[in-house]
Formats: sequence, C-alpha cells, structure tokens
Amino acid sequence: MSSHHIVRDDQEPALIIANGAACNPELLGQLLEWSPLVIVLDSAIERVIKLDIKVDVLLGDFDNGFDPEIYKTSQYPIEIVHTPDQDKTDLEKAFDYLIARKIPAVNVVWATGKRADHTITNLTNIVRYRNLLKIVILDDHSKIFLLPNKFEKWYTAKTPISLIPIGVVNGINSTNLQYPLKDDTLTIGYRTGSSNSVAQNGLVSITHTNGDLLLMECMD
Amino acid sequence: MSSHHIVRDDQEPALIIANGAACNPELLGQLLEWSPLVIVLDSAIERVIKLDIKVDVLLGDFDNGFDPEIYKTSQYPIEIVHTPDQDKTDLEKAFDYLIARKIPAVNVVWATGKRADHTITNLTNIVRYRNLLKIVILDDHSKIFLLPNKFEKWYTAKTPISLIPIGVVNGINSTNLQYPLKDDTLTIGYRTGSSNSVAQNGLVSITHTNGDLLLMECMD
Repeated sequence: MSSHHIVRDDQEPALIIANGAACNPELLGQLLEWSPLVIVLDSAIERVIKLDIKVDVLLGDFDNGFDPEIYKTSQYPIEIVHTPDQDKTDLEKAFDYLIARKIPAVNVVWATGKRADHTITNLTNIVRYRNLLKIVILDDHSKIFLLPNKFEKWYTAKTPISLIPIGVVNGINSTNLQYPLKDDTLTIGYRTGSSNSVAQNGLVSITHTNGDLLLMECMD
Repeated sequence: MSSHHIVRDDQEPALIIANGAACNPELLGQLLEWSPLVIVLDSAIERVIKLDIKVDVLLGDFDNGFDPEIYKTSQYPIEIVHTPDQDKTDLEKAFDYLIARKIPAVNVVWATGKRADHTITNLTNIVRYRNLLKIVILDDHSKIFLLPNKFEKWYTAKTPISLIPIGVVNGINSTNLQYPLKDDTLTIGYRTGSSNSVAQNGLVSITHTNGDLLLMECMD
C-alpha cells in the first residue's frame, strides 16, 4: 500500500482517479508520492484496488449494481460518498466535493481514453470550475489545464503546446511560441491553436481577454 | 493482404487511418471488408504495413524524417501525397483530398487516443466539413458523426447516445431519448447532452435550428 501521512496539508493537490483508460503506473506512482487525498470514481475502484493503492474517498452514483460497502473493510478508513444526481458527471461531483472541503487544487488521471463522449466532456467541463478549483488532467501523453487570462511559464525550446478554445476565445496574444498569436480569435471546430511549440528556452506568455482557453502539453 | 477490386465505386465511404491509438483489428477488418479506398496519414504507415493492409494513398507532411518513397515498391501501386501546409492537420488535408476526388463519405479510425490535443482537434474539426463530406469517426468504444439539422435513426432501447455541442447549439428537440430535449440550448464546457440513451426500440429523432452538434454512440 502507498503510505499516507495521518496529518495532511489540504493545500496539496488532491488526486482523482476517474473511470477512463488507466495511465502508466509510473505516472500514477509519481502523483501518489505526494501522499495526496485520493478520490476514486465509482466502479474504477475495482481496477484501482488491484494496484494496491490506499483510497480515501469512493464517490459515485453506484448505479451499475456494485456494492461500495465491501470496500469499507479492505480500505478502512474510507469515506463513501453516494452522489445520485444525474445532471452531473461523477468527475464534476468529485470537483464539487473538493470545493466543499476547501481543497484548492486537484490532479486528475484516467479521465481520457475509452469512450470519446466521456473524454471530451471531462476535458471541456473543467472550464466551469474557473476560480473555484485548480484542475490539471494528466494522461500518458498529455497535461491539460485551463489558462488564466494572463499566463506565464518557463519552457524548454520545442516543447509542444496546443491551445484549445472551449467555445470562442478572443484577444489572444503570445510570446515565445513558434506560431505567435497576435490579438487572435480561436473557435472550437473552426480555428484552434493545436500543435504549436515553444520557440526558445525561456518564459512563454499567453494572454486572452475573454473565453475559456485550455493549454495542452502533449507528447507522442 | 486485404483484397481490392480493381474497379471501385467511389460512392462507397473511403477509409482514413490516422495517427492516434490503433483500434481493435476486428473493427479495422470490418471496415476493410468493403474494399474502400484506404488513406494512411504520415508515419502511421509504419504501424499499418505491419498489419498487412494494402494502402492506396499515403498523405502527410512527412516532417518526422521518414522517407515515404520506400513504400512505392512494397505498396505498389500507391499514391504519395505530400501536404506541407502547416495550417491544417493531416486529417483535414485527407478530407480535402477526398473532396477534390468527389468522394462523398469517409470512415476514420485511429483518430482518437494518445495525445489529447490531437483527439479533441480531430473530433471537433469535422464540423467544418458539413455539406462537403460525410465523416464518421470510429474507435473501439465510440462512433461519432455530425448531425444534420433533422436526424432520424432506428435504435434499440438503452443504446447510449451523447450529444456534444461544438460551440453553442440552439433549438434542440428530441423524441425517444431517456432525457428528452425541448427547445434546449447546449454549450460546450457548460451544458452538454452526454450520457443520454434511447428510451424504447424505435426511431429517435433529434432536430436543432443552428450550431454544430455531434452525436456519439459510445459503449464501455
């Protein structure tokens, strides 16, 4: 079992293990090293326990006929949160849970792959949590997060950077990208900023005036 | 090698094999049974030839330092289309190629999985080909296509149906869905129609007045 400190600093990002394709165990191991609060969504628990991970919270609507109570013993102590609301995905309910606990940040794995409807919904619905929760979605090829209106980060040259507008994003400017944006508008389905990259070692800045813009650092 | 008829009816859907995660060989086999025109994108050819598939067209910018010419012998006859335009993805260039050849429809595999930026770009960019090319994206869990303003299809009860707006879609009405839509508006990132399903065996109708609405039939 991965070790957990009894006393947690709830300022550390929590970890949500969603119900899509499993990631490389190495990525999962890196995220677990920080002893985060681990939340598992619904029947993903069946795959997670095989990996010998200590789960803190099991959350879902549990409508696939499986009994979450059986994990009360094997994963003691575990909090079981039954969320029957059909208007939200289990991932959104887990975000709501973290916000209620005043946890400010979360990493999410297993949120992509398998069903395309779940993948696109999980990736795009993070925009509604702007200013509520700092969310990073990770898989074996990708690191995804919502950009604030002014973003700056140091990158090495040639790092692939994709800018994906969720809807319409206006007034985008960038520095130190191979294909610079100058007061640009990006529109999902019509004009996106996929497959850009960092020009030189150094700070990249990306600003936009309105709309929801995802940054994706992706590698083959 | 899969067999090909010498004389093709170009009204049959072509098949594009993109550069994402490979699908189940069974799905690929089913699509190849119809002897379609097979287009492979860029370095995906390296994985495709191992599957003993006859390729008709190899298309890409070939900027990863691999030499497409070596396939001229092993895949004879093969058309090699060099498309250096950096403003479009290889998948979009393949769509443009089919439109120029007046081929009306295409199935696309290997367009999802792996990099999230490629997945979301491939799924959402099909909307710009409305009225130009009938596109269906398939993977092991999903079948995805753009809805016309009036759509009707027979489904069995409980078939999962997700409606994903690419941007904002207005005036949506449905019949025979578990969660009916009545003059609804869906907005990507904020309100989507993921995880709906068919109420009863029979026709499902979905209409919308404007915007780009994807239908995803997805299974775990």
